[in-house]
Amino acid sequence: TIFAITPTHTRPLQKAELTRISQTFLLIPNFHWIIVEDAETRTPLVTNLLAQSGLSYTHLNAETPKEWKLLLEDPQWKKPRGVKQRNAALQWLRNHADPRKPAVVFFADDDNTYSLELFEEMRNTKTVSVWPVGLVGNVRFERPILDEHDKVANWSTGWRPERPFAIDMAGFAINLKLLLDNPDAEFSFDAPRGYQESTILGAVVTKENLEPKASKCTKVYVWHTRTENPKLNDVKGKVPGMVVDWTVEV
Amino acid sequence: TIFAITPTHTRPLQKAELTRISQTFLLIPNFHWIIVEDAETRTPLVTNLLAQSGLSYTHLNAETPKEWKLLLEDPQWKKPRGVKQRNAALQWLRNHADPRKPAVVFFADDDNTYSLELFEEMRNTKTVSVWPVGLVGNVRFERPILDEHDKVANWSTGWRPERPFAIDMAGFAINLKLLLDNPDAEFSFDAPRGYQESTILGAVVTKENLEPKASKCTKVYVWHTRTENPKLNDVKGKVPGMVVDWTVEV
Ligand SMILES: O=c1ccn([C@@H]2O[C@H](COP(=O)(O)OP(=O)(O)O)[C@@H](O)[C@H]2O)c(=O)[nH]1
Ligand SMILES: O=c1ccn([C@@H]2O[C@H](COP(=O)(O)OP(=O)(O)O)[C@@H](O)[C@H]2O)c(=O)[nH]1
Ligand SMILES: [Mn+2]
Ligand SMILES: [Mn+2]
Repeated sequence: TIFAITPTHTRPLQKAELTRISQTFLLIPNFHWIIVEDAETRTPLVTNLLAQSGLSYTHLNAETPKEWKLLLEDPQWKKPRGVKQRNAALQWLRNHADPRKPAVVFFADDDNTYSLELFEEMRNTKTVSVWPVGLVGNVRFERPILDEHDKVANWSTGWRPERPFAIDMAGFAINLKLLLDNPDAEFSFDAPRGYQESTILGAVVTKENLEPKASKCTKVYVWHTRTENPKLNDVKGKVPGMVVDWTVEV
Repeated sequence: TIFAITPTHTRPLQKAELTRISQTFLLIPNFHWIIVEDAETRTPLVTNLLAQSGLSYTHLNAETPKEWKLLLEDPQWKKPRGVKQRNAALQWLRNHADPRKPAVVFFADDDNTYSLELFEEMRNTKTVSVWPVGLVGNVRFERPILDEHDKVANWSTGWRPERPFAIDMAGFAINLKLLLDNPDAEFSFDAPRGYQESTILGAVVTKENLEPKASKCTKVYVWHTRTENPKLNDVKGKVPGMVVDWTVEV
C-alpha cells in the first residue's frame, strides 16, 4: 500500500485542489489517502468530497496551534506548514497500520502535481527513496546528486545544499517499517526553516541508505506547483449589485 | 463523444499542467482531446506526453501571429489567448468529425480544474449547455441566472454582466452539430476584451435556447484556477554553483 499524507486547510482554492489531486489518486492502485485538516473539526466540504471520491481514505483533523498559524500578512516561508497534521497522520499509522503488510509513506501536499510514474517509482521502497522535484526552490528542479556507485553524494538545490537532507517534502517516500521502528520520528515546530525534511529523515535513515529512483534521479515526476490565490472582490463587498451566495459551495 | 479543445503554450509550468489535466481526462468515458500548441511546430514534450497518456487525442499546432502574442511585460488580459488554436481545432472538427455521431465540444484551458461531474453534465447537450464557473472574474463564482421557467435570464458575474453571453470559456459546451451547421462560427482577434465567448456563442445559439446544467446552475463543477509562474533563478544564472541541466525535461 502507498499511504499518502495530505495536510489541508480551508481556503477558496481548497475544493479545487482536493478535487484534482483526488483524480490523480484514483488512478493509483493500492492507495490509501490520509487527509488531515488544519481545523478544529472535520469540515463538511472535505467530508463530502472524500465520501464521493471513490478512494480508500482516513479523514483526520489537527489544528495548528495559534502561535504557529500563518497570518494573512505573513510571507509563506515565515512558519512551517503541515507539521501538526503530518504528525497526526504518523500517529494514526502507528496505531492502525498493519506492520506485517509492506507499505510506503509519502507526504503529498494538496497543491503539488504528481505524475502516475511517481507512485510506481516509490512503491518498492525498502528504506527511503528519493527523486528530483520540479519547480521548487526557485529552480527548474532540485535533485540528489549520485556518486559513482549510484548512492546519494549530495544535493543540487536552489537553496542551502548543506542541509543533511536538502530535499523537498515531495522528494521522498519512507518504508512504513522505519516509521514503526522509530516511534519518535516526526516533524517539529522547532526545526529551522527548511529543516522539516531533515528532521524526519535524520530520525529514520542515513544518507548512505537512501534509494535513488526515477532513472538515477534524472527524471522529474513531481512538480511543486502553487496556485494563485484568487482575489475575491464579491466577498469584500466590492462588486456592485453582487450578493455573495454562501449556500453554493465552491 | 466529448471533444475537449485545449490551447497550450511552452512555459516552465506546461508539463505539470498537462500532466494533471490528462489524469482528469483519463477518468472520462468517450473522451477525445484536441490539443493545439501555440507553436510553429509540434514539440517533443507534448508529443511524448500525449503518446504516453493513454488518451484518445489529436495533436495540432497553430502559432499566434506575432502582433497578438502576449509579451513578457504584458498583463494577462491585454491580448486574447487561445484564439488561433481554438479556431484550428474547430477547423479540424469540421474536416474530420463524423456528423452522424452525437458529440459535444468543450473548451478546456490547460490550467483550470475540472470535476468528473462536469463531463456528465455536458454530455447530453442538445444546443449549448451552461453552468457556473468557480474562482473567475475575481468572484467566488459566476453563474447564469435563471427565470421562473428555468431559462437563462441574465448573468451574475464579477465583470460586465451586460455582455450577450457573460460567461467564461469554461462555462459552456456546444453540440457539435451547431458548429458544423454554422461553419463560420469561430473566435476572433477583433472581439473586444471579454467578448470571445459571446462571439462564438452568438454565432450558434440564442440566450433563449441555452440549457442550464449543474442543478439549475447552483453547483460549481469547474474552477478557473491559475498556477503561479515560478521564479527560476538558475535559468537566470543567479544560483551560484548551479548548472542548468537542459537535458532533464521538467
Ligand atoms: O495553514 C496552513 C497552511 C498550509 N497547510 C497545508 O500544508 C501543505 C503545505 O502548504 P503550502 O502548499 O501552502 O506550502 P508550500 O510548501 O507550497 O510553501 C499543503 O497541503 C497545505 O494545504 C495547512 O494545513 N495549514
Ligand atoms: O500565449 C499563449 C497564452 C495562453 N495560451 C493558452 O490559452 C489558454 C488560456 O490562457 P491562460 O490560462 O493563460 O488565460 P486565463 O484565461 O487564465 O487568463 C491556456 O490553455 C493557455 O495554455 C496559449 O496557447 N498561448
Ligand atoms: Mn505547496
Ligand atoms: Mn487560465
